[in-house]
Amino acid sequence: MTASRGRLIGVGTGPGDPELLTLKAVRAIGEADVIAHFLKRGRAGNARTIVAPHWRQEAIELPLAYPVTTEMDRHGEDYKTQIGAFFDDAAARIAIHLDAGRSVVVLSEGDPFFYGSYMHVHARLAPHYQTEVVPGITSLSGCWSQAGVPLMQGDDIFTVLPGTLEVSVLAARLAETDSAVIMKVGRNLPKIRQALVAAGKMDGAIYVERGTMADAVVQRLAERDDAPAPYFSQVLVPGWKDRP
Amino acid sequence: MTASRGRLIGVGTGPGDPELLTLKAVRAIGEADVIAHFLKRGRAGNARTIVAPHWRQEAIELPLAYPVTTEMDRHGEDYKTQIGAFFDDAAARIAIHLDAGRSVVVLSEGDPFFYGSYMHVHARLAPHYQTEVVPGITSLSGCWSQAGVPLMQGDDIFTVLPGTLEVSVLAARLAETDSAVIMKVGRNLPKIRQALVAAGKMDGAIYVERGTMADAVVQRLAERDDAPAPYFSQVLVPGWKDRP
Repeated sequence: MTASRGRLIGVGTGPGDPELLTLKAVRAIGEADVIAHFLKRGRAGNARTIVAPHWRQEAIELPLAYPVTTEMDRHGEDYKTQIGAFFDDAAARIAIHLDAGRSVVVLSEGDPFFYGSYMHVHARLAPHYQTEVVPGITSLSGCWSQAGVPLMQGDDIFTVLPGTLEVSVLAARLAETDSAVIMKVGRNLPKIRQALVAAGKMDGAIYVERGTMADAVVQRLAERDDAPAPYFSQVLVPGWKDRP
Repeated sequence: MTASRGRLIGVGTGPGDPELLTLKAVRAIGEADVIAHFLKRGRAGNARTIVAPHWRQEAIELPLAYPVTTEMDRHGEDYKTQIGAFFDDAAARIAIHLDAGRSVVVLSEGDPFFYGSYMHVHARLAPHYQTEVVPGITSLSGCWSQAGVPLMQGDDIFTVLPGTLEVSVLAARLAETDSAVIMKVGRNLPKIRQALVAAGKMDGAIYVERGTMADAVVQRLAERDDAPAPYFSQVLVPGWKDRP
């Protein structure tokens, strides 16, 4: 019975440039019986667009639409209950295909295990099914490559910080790390700026929007206004002070 | 004059599995006039092996052999002088090809801007030549995908720490982050273990060796002895406590 079950494969689709798919991702997508992908606010993400040229005509598409928007309080109990139920349901829908012996690829923008939604179905299904994770290029690599700005070298400490943190926490963490990337920029630019100034690291900070995509933006953070940033934006804080 | 100059392209070759090259890397390698790569201790790295099937027969190979071993004190003045002179020389050798109008790909294991040697030639040549960076899958993504262990989610802070840090610094940084990866494991396992215990994070820690390669090893750190670890090894410290 177990031998006839399908395999679950989390596939990273990279930061946006369709050429940043790996050979392994292309093969996994081309061989899959089922292609599952998450939809936010009713829109298919970039992942689906990026992989569409590579998937088999006879593959079954399994869209998994989020029930909640990003405006809800992510730390509230309502959110946790709703999102938990959504991932339970998504895992159950995937399991039906796995039980029928079909291989299921779950698309994940960036890298599946780097803040990716795939992790939620992986955690639910990995104890029961054979799984594989095909890593992808993270948005971090996409943004610093787009900017052409090296961030870390040698014994540098590197920290990824969500812009949603309190100013004091952001500033303290920035002061203690050599290099950093701040994600979840959104409406947090004034706060991020304040934290960078407090940590003495405003000067080198770079703002990157939609790294590796056709309409990418790169500018010094000092030259960026405080208007809300789109989802695909990051602030890069270079370290590597001690260049030979 | 400037228009006829060649382009410098830093290309990430990923964590070890040859299938983890991106489509963009394959194209850049296939189009390059010159393929440069770094050699440590006289051995060509994995990068050269991974890309060999993709490069043009008529491409010029430019090996760049490090003059110093990793045993030297990396913070000493001697090391800095020698390694600085080596990168000056490497940049000059690449510039000869760029001036002759040839495109030069510099291979970089993992991602060129994630602790990669390419950064040193990029910093020297980017002010004078057209450059592009093709991001690669980092060793981080390679190791956590191999282990099948998700590390971070939502508003988690994630920190990359070199195992070369003092125990007290390692322990303090581990205590303040949600998730972490410790690189440069080598002879530092006893110290890393001590820091993880002090930070109360020993239990979930995973040891990964040669992630994504054919002979990969994944085990709980608690079950790994203190014998020196090979170059391609990391310790994963999962966060993501607050799963919905």
